[in-house]
Amino acid sequence: MPLVRISVRDAMPITKRRLVADAVYDAMRATIGIPEGDRFIILSAHSQDELFVDPNFKDMKRTADFALIHITLRRGRTVEAKQALFAEIASLLAERAAIAPDNTMIVLAENDAADWSFGRGEAQFVLQQPPATPSSH
Amino acid sequence: MPLVRISVRDAMPITKRRLVADAVYDAMRATIGIPEGDRFIILSAHSQDELFVDPNFKDMKRTADFALIHITLRRGRTVEAKQALFAEIASLLAERAAIAPDNTMIVLAENDAADWSFGRGEAQFVLQQPPATPSSH
Amino acid sequence: MPLVRISVRDAMPITKRRLVADAVYDAMRATIGIPEGDRFIILSAHSQDELFVDPNFKDMKRTADFALIHITLRRGRTVEAKQALFAEIASLLAERAAIAPDNTMIVLAENDAADWSFGRGEAQFVLQQPPATPSSH
Repeated sequence: MPLVRISVRDAMPITKRRLVADAVYDAMRATIGIPEGDRFIILSAHSQDELFVDPNFKDMKRTADFALIHITLRRGRTVEAKQALFAEIASLLAERAAIAPDNTMIVLAENDAADWSFGRGEAQFVLQQPPATPSSH
Repeated sequence: MPLVRISVRDAMPITKRRLVADAVYDAMRATIGIPEGDRFIILSAHSQDELFVDPNFKDMKRTADFALIHITLRRGRTVEAKQALFAEIASLLAERAAIAPDNTMIVLAENDAADWSFGRGEAQFVLQQPPATPSSH
Repeated sequence: MPLVRISVRDAMPITKRRLVADAVYDAMRATIGIPEGDRFIILSAHSQDELFVDPNFKDMKRTADFALIHITLRRGRTVEAKQALFAEIASLLAERAAIAPDNTMIVLAENDAADWSFGRGEAQFVLQQPPATPSSH
């Protein structure tokens, strides 16, 4: 379900961008109960004229290796689950893509069960119930 | 009002991308009461190194024809209205752009009336009321 | 905190795009209490085949100078604060980048304190409290 938008600088090699995408997916699997295959990620690479990032806000040290991860997901995760997700993303990006944790920014946006259609024009998270109809007897 | 972000693969021809945009607008008009001219659509075409989509999640068959449609709109549509919107978008994309319904994914994000300015620095959905002032008599 | 996504036409010169980004940041500083350095802006420039904008909806006159500003921020600003933000953005874009107020569209998306990580895998807006543990005495 989560829809993930990743924004990086165009200087980041394509192989490294893929490592970032894979790490975000694995972190969601490990911490917020995302099922296997629930992987929908849009990555955009931007020039320095397009990605404006403060180098030090909140006492971080941000460089051209910065990765912004914007995740839309269903409402209801606890604060603790979100904290675990943040920690795991930062940890995996460091381990696998050598991106310093200071360079990993994450923003979540929550929506509702009825806000998702994975295909066929259906709202897969909404229980299919027959419409209420007047009794015909 | 809706702000529509459409993401497709760069292999999709430009004429077909336009058909997708038009179909989403027409589907919103037909199902969720969008007025004529309320058409604000940003389309992005991505290489295969940028758009990571599971080919089979939720038993769909997704191909390079995949279209992800992310719509920001005012809170308050019923589940039934959203289901009608999903069905109509999938139907029109199939009819007009030959995109299989399995390839149409839709994600909604709701916000509030005060979250929209269509121009001139005004919040058009908020009723213009004079500020409460102390009586001057 | 705010995450700002700006979409413009690729015909807009790069120097002007930067003026837009700077103006949005300054307007947020002036009207909704954004601290210095809280500047995270992603700008995308689109061809006319990618940015579909009604030229007249809500009685505006929109041209190729159109700027769409999509801001994700923490829940809780008053309607009046949002109105002040809209007015200031439109005003600064006109003054500094010569973008007519009719060409400035703004959409807000609110989320929660626990939805932000500025780095290090931490949720900086969530008060760090020790987990509840059984008394050990």
